Amino acid sequence: MEIIKPSILPGFMELLPKEQLVFNQIKDTIRNTFEENSFENIETPIIEKTEILLAKGGGETTKQIYNIDHDSRDMSLRFDLTVPLARYVSEHYHELEFPFRRYHIGKVYRGERNQKGRYKEFYQCDIDIVGNNSLNIRNDAEVPAVMYQVFKKLNVANAVININNRKLLNGFLNSLEIANYIEVLRVIDKIDKVDSNKFREMLKVEIPSEDKLDKLIEFISFNGSNEEIITYLDRLEVSDELFILGLKELKEVYNYMILFGIDEEALKINLSITRGLDYYTGMVFETFLTGYESIGSVCSGGRYEDLASNFTKQKLPGIGMSIGLTRLFYQLSQAGLINIESENYCDVLIVPMKKTNKFSMEILEELRDNKIKAQIYFEKAKFKKIFNYADKQQIKFVIVAGEEEYEEKKFSLKNMKTGEQNVIDLKDAINLIKNY
Amino acid sequence: MEIIKPSILPGFMELLPKEQLVFNQIKDTIRNTFEENSFENIETPIIEKTEILLAKGGGETTKQIYNIDHDSRDMSLRFDLTVPLARYVSEHYHELEFPFRRYHIGKVYRGERNQKGRYKEFYQCDIDIVGNNSLNIRNDAEVPAVMYQVFKKLNVANAVININNRKLLNGFLNSLEIANYIEVLRVIDKIDKVDSNKFREMLKVEIPSEDKLDKLIEFISFNGSNEEIITYLDRLEVSDELFILGLKELKEVYNYMILFGIDEEALKINLSITRGLDYYTGMVFETFLTGYESIGSVCSGGRYEDLASNFTKQKLPGIGMSIGLTRLFYQLSQAGLINIESENYCDVLIVPMKKTNKFSMEILEELRDNKIKAQIYFEKAKFKKIFNYADKQQIKFVIVAGEEEYEEKKFSLKNMKTGEQNVIDLKDAINLIKNY
Repeated sequence: MEIIKPSILPGFMELLPKEQLVFNQIKDTIRNTFEENSFENIETPIIEKTEILLAKGGGETTKQIYNIDHDSRDMSLRFDLTVPLARYVSEHYHELEFPFRRYHIGKVYRGERNQKGRYKEFYQCDIDIVGNNSLNIRNDAEVPAVMYQVFKKLNVANAVININNRKLLNGFLNSLEIANYIEVLRVIDKIDKVDSNKFREMLKVEIPSEDKLDKLIEFISFNGSNEEIITYLDRLEVSDELFILGLKELKEVYNYMILFGIDEEALKINLSITRGLDYYTGMVFETFLTGYESIGSVCSGGRYEDLASNFTKQKLPGIGMSIGLTRLFYQLSQAGLINIESENYCDVLIVPMKKTNKFSMEILEELRDNKIKAQIYFEKAKFKKIFNYADKQQIKFVIVAGEEEYEEKKFSLKNMKTGEQNVIDLKDAINLIKNY
Repeated sequence: MEIIKPSILPGFMELLPKEQLVFNQIKDTIRNTFEENSFENIETPIIEKTEILLAKGGGETTKQIYNIDHDSRDMSLRFDLTVPLARYVSEHYHELEFPFRRYHIGKVYRGERNQKGRYKEFYQCDIDIVGNNSLNIRNDAEVPAVMYQVFKKLNVANAVININNRKLLNGFLNSLEIANYIEVLRVIDKIDKVDSNKFREMLKVEIPSEDKLDKLIEFISFNGSNEEIITYLDRLEVSDELFILGLKELKEVYNYMILFGIDEEALKINLSITRGLDYYTGMVFETFLTGYESIGSVCSGGRYEDLASNFTKQKLPGIGMSIGLTRLFYQLSQAGLINIESENYCDVLIVPMKKTNKFSMEILEELRDNKIKAQIYFEKAKFKKIFNYADKQQIKFVIVAGEEEYEEKKFSLKNMKTGEQNVIDLKDAINLIKNY
């Protein structure tokens, strides 16, 4: 038979079982946190009508979307979980209660060019709270507080949530009478990607006035404690209404975030954060891991005015944040923040002899009843091979159900780490294993 | 803005949050059972190279496969989890330990024609034990025993595992000197789909001899207790070696299944089960729910001689079974075996007043610390609307943090089911809620 070389496509992540176990633990932590905070789960098809996915009209997305070639329907793989949420809420509007608190953990697809650490198939873990016509601003504090709980529990590094309000920057541009703010925002979005001279140069193309340029750069670069930034913003005395509203929202959300249990040190007002150009309209968030800022934001999101204007006339404002889990896992691994050695699928390997098959199965059943993960090694093999298997699989104990000890309902129990070996009965073995 | 009608493609399942919760519970039960039995998890990309997926050569599969139209690569969505397992084990052969016990729960895609209860995107939940060169037959008893645990825990209906051995039927055909057994097996596979006259007629096309036809039909239709079937098989005194081996395997696996904790009543030898034509070579399994046999098999599988002959020269025999979760969920719902009313995402809704915002957040934190799922209703709304929301969401208790009671650090707690209402402090409320 002709052999086809077994391999996956480039740009896809595939893990070995032990890595998968750690990946699953992170995913479970995220899911459990979402559920503990009373978010409802939805799961939408990975394939949707292309017209739904591209309703907003395309740009980059159109090029990256995976189109499916099957019968005559125009269908594609989703590239995020937000468009499916918009479609879901519009479609099931009358079956849902608002505010609709939903979480969704699922794979999305983007045919980007190959690049280290960028995956074409990746998990997003999203929470959103969607209101019907209006949504109280306190939700803008709760959503990042839930994400904060996630990173606290993951316990890999301190997470710092950077917050800003889009109205502040827009209002400030108004006050400077800068009208081409889409172009200006596009440049500001690159502030972390170019050096300060280059940044000024790029911005000058859009803002010829040196005075306005100075003021804007001072504004978005202003750094200090949260208190100092608030004082700075107050003292600017900008009279633009949007700015005033943005400042009020920022203060309010900041205070509520503290009340929701976020440490003050984990909270940073950052006036340069914009999160793209069009979608977000109020609070915006990015999350950085202390000491690993170069990874970039590991959890981002913000407030939007209207989720689903392409699918319904109903106004559905919301606030959402998202973790890109696949990329996060890759980055945490690269940074040495993930320890796969500590985990395993099985704690006890049982080796039966000819006469002790039945006894071995009784041992197995009893161990499992006691919540101890165990398996029987059924294959014919030399002890060396079996112990090598246990070692590779990081199994903690090996039970050899020898025929002699069996008369007394005993067996040999070996601690694989210490090498200690006891002839022992089941009750004592369970105690020993459980208390290890 | 132009409105696009929000809808999903036909043949895809999408659930409301409460249904999703039940779906997740079933999925979690399956996953937990697999993990308790020391199966290792893998997760492969949903998109694979088409040449990998179709390595075996196509038939129906080629027509049903979802091809992806993106750059010049020939890639498609997987249509099962077995081909990806074969590719995975071959690709990572040197990084895995054997026997390799793997579970995989994931979505697969088949562009079948639209049909009620058939989905184009559906979950498969697979376990397989793959050996290196050889695999002990006791594994053939363990795999169905794990699946039996799943159905025991799901507790929707009694599951009966039907077992057979492919060698028996093949050996019996040998003994009758029936050579065209592929054609004959193809007919036998339809035994449950046509009436007995039609079945005989179809079989007669392949087997002209009335005598042989009678013998074969008696064989595959033989019914009785397991003991009676074993006695029948023994008394046939077929001398074909394959038959003798098949009978030995069947008896052995049957006995081990009992030792693995399967109730005798949940085990049925069924000589008509073949499970397709080419893949399985030994034990085969199908699972039926008592009283709901018309649903068909809810969990099937068997022993195969060689998992990955398309991808490696290494001989990898294995035993696997699979649950089609999406279809199972649909069928259980249709049969009225699923109760979505008993589940909810949130147990306590907290309603703050102007002055009790901070107090409400303290209540929230304390409830969550006590593992009680709670949320705050932040929106401005009349009580009627709020209680209606709680009712619709099946929230058990509503806390109204009134401004008067707040002086004494108390609040009103309403039991939504009984209507009972108490002014109570946090400690007593937690006791009351936890003991409800």
